[in-house]
Amino acid sequence: MRIVGIMTGTSLDCVDVAVVEFFETSKFTLLASGAIPINAEFREKILAICNFTTTIKEVSQANFYLSHLYEQAVNAVLDANGIPISTIDAVAIHGQTIWHNPTAEEYAGVAIASTLQLGCGSVLSALLQKTVVSDFRSADIAIGGQGAPLVPIFDYYFLRDTAIYTIALNIGGIANITAIPPNATINNIMAYDTGAGNMLIDAYMQQFYQKDYDNDGEIAMSGVVNADMLYGLLALPYYQQPPPKSCGRELFNAEYVSAVLPANIPKCDIIRTLTELTTMTISTEINKLTSAGRVIVKGGGVNNTCMMQLLRQYIAKDIEILNSDAIGISSKYYEAIAFAFLGYLTLSDVAGNVPNVTGASQSIVLGSISRNYKR
Amino acid sequence: MRIVGIMTGTSLDCVDVAVVEFFETSKFTLLASGAIPINAEFREKILAICNFTTTIKEVSQANFYLSHLYEQAVNAVLDANGIPISTIDAVAIHGQTIWHNPTAEEYAGVAIASTLQLGCGSVLSALLQKTVVSDFRSADIAIGGQGAPLVPIFDYYFLRDTAIYTIALNIGGIANITAIPPNATINNIMAYDTGAGNMLIDAYMQQFYQKDYDNDGEIAMSGVVNADMLYGLLALPYYQQPPPKSCGRELFNAEYVSAVLPANIPKCDIIRTLTELTTMTISTEINKLTSAGRVIVKGGGVNNTCMMQLLRQYIAKDIEILNSDAIGISSKYYEAIAFAFLGYLTLSDVAGNVPNVTGASQSIVLGSISRNYKR
Repeated sequence: MRIVGIMTGTSLDCVDVAVVEFFETSKFTLLASGAIPINAEFREKILAICNFTTTIKEVSQANFYLSHLYEQAVNAVLDANGIPISTIDAVAIHGQTIWHNPTAEEYAGVAIASTLQLGCGSVLSALLQKTVVSDFRSADIAIGGQGAPLVPIFDYYFLRDTAIYTIALNIGGIANITAIPPNATINNIMAYDTGAGNMLIDAYMQQFYQKDYDNDGEIAMSGVVNADMLYGLLALPYYQQPPPKSCGRELFNAEYVSAVLPANIPKCDIIRTLTELTTMTISTEINKLTSAGRVIVKGGGVNNTCMMQLLRQYIAKDIEILNSDAIGISSKYYEAIAFAFLGYLTLSDVAGNVPNVTGASQSIVLGSISRNYKR
Repeated sequence: MRIVGIMTGTSLDCVDVAVVEFFETSKFTLLASGAIPINAEFREKILAICNFTTTIKEVSQANFYLSHLYEQAVNAVLDANGIPISTIDAVAIHGQTIWHNPTAEEYAGVAIASTLQLGCGSVLSALLQKTVVSDFRSADIAIGGQGAPLVPIFDYYFLRDTAIYTIALNIGGIANITAIPPNATINNIMAYDTGAGNMLIDAYMQQFYQKDYDNDGEIAMSGVVNADMLYGLLALPYYQQPPPKSCGRELFNAEYVSAVLPANIPKCDIIRTLTELTTMTISTEINKLTSAGRVIVKGGGVNNTCMMQLLRQYIAKDIEILNSDAIGISSKYYEAIAFAFLGYLTLSDVAGNVPNVTGASQSIVLGSISRNYKR
């Protein structure tokens, strides 16, 4: 089955597209990939929807706009790689998350947990004349889960090993790991957020250096660790909480850092110390899980040389550290590929959540299927 | 195929549920039906979402809340009628329309038309452990249609006759007709809004009588037509526009009536004149279409004796007028049954729109399918 996976993350910078051919659930080939930029006007609109009050007109238009954008993104990547759309079986879209709160709250007298991703599957299906799978998180939340993380089932199918303890490490805004013991069944895996990934570093790079991120870790390498700041940051109770656990901007924000920022600290030392924080908290969790095995890294962090060197320094020496690219899975398109796989599972009537990872009451087929064309 | 159809209209008073067994596309049996009230707090929340600014949190919670409400509604109607849920093949939900604008407008540099119904298919599927079909309007809009009306394909399949010109008349808030000439193919049918149905009457009943509607047309029968008011109302250019055409609250609102309201007119005369307006504009359109045949009426208007008597008076005498109940289709649950049928078409991979009715560029399978359970 040949599936296009589409991921648009909270950074809202581009639409990631991965064209993937799956052979059963054991092998896949990435046929093409590409990132289509999101225009600034739309990014502002989505940020406004998320951060302020909005109107239903805005929400409805954004929902349809995204489907048109995804249509263009799919066609652009297919055209650029000479892949006829007739060879594509389906498109799987994560959609743009604009609300995610898996904790039930009172709403009109009922306890409601909910999540909302924009991007209409039916519109995209009608435009592309292809099967589209969308809305992967809702069903898991409906049965008591967190609706996240969903990538672990992909990690499990494609990284597991009969003899080697394998840890998938994603360093995005938040850093998270999927732990897969040797010969694990799906119920033996564990996945959780270790803490901030690039989020704090990126925020201070924007504030002090007017750059989106620390390219290749250059600024971090030019600074030194400030111990007071580091210990202050490590005092956050989250690090002591047992897994499974998840975190976001509500913990890792400007106040968290500014509360422990020493007077007159050089800017590059702030970046260096935040890089230290990310790598120490990741390494601590990994070393607790195993003393030998391998860590497979993906996400923006793989391009930060300082971060990768620090991980090598802190993670137990019998644990091999590899970029996912080294084992044949694009570190940049890892999530888009994973959602193509989740779409494949949906279309194969196979459950996509991992109950002991999301907390759902059972395993469940995820997503909704739109087939709005003649066959 | 046994399908539950769920309709929640703009009146937000209750969830209409129809349990329907379809035999091919020519015959069905209504096994059970029921209306589950919507609580006042939720109604206020939805009206606030539609009329004012809102937050994404509200939208996301309302989306999940509706699925929980639909779950309760399905179970209540099945339980009350002793129908085991194991015998149900699927549930089809219209959802709660909170935005509908099929006219493209500029949005982030792109021309976007859109519609938005709340009620998450995936959540309802997970809760009921049943196949759910939802989002029936989006695909038609994606290919240039109005996304409405969608009931005409049901009218066509179940009311058409080889010899008799048949007109399906729905008197809801807005009145609309589906014209099915003898021996019509799907491309020969026509459907459009004739103008206000009960919307204006209901508004003035609430204002002057603190009642939701004119029960049995009693107030209208106690008044007389005011000719000045009626001619003023009939001057609206909409009535002269050729079909296909559609209308709503943007035309038929308080300003439309108050602009032509004579001084010191008795309240019951206002209700009587508005009832006259509805029946005259319906009858004019029907008489233009044919001089002989039958009109099959459904919607709230069938319970307004004054309205039904006026229709009999104004519609050509060789046109028979029947409640849909008289031919075996519940007038109250007609729309819920029609959406069950639209769900049946989706699951049968059959197009549900009628391009010359909606204006879409082609016929297309409607809806998205959620199957979030083990099979």
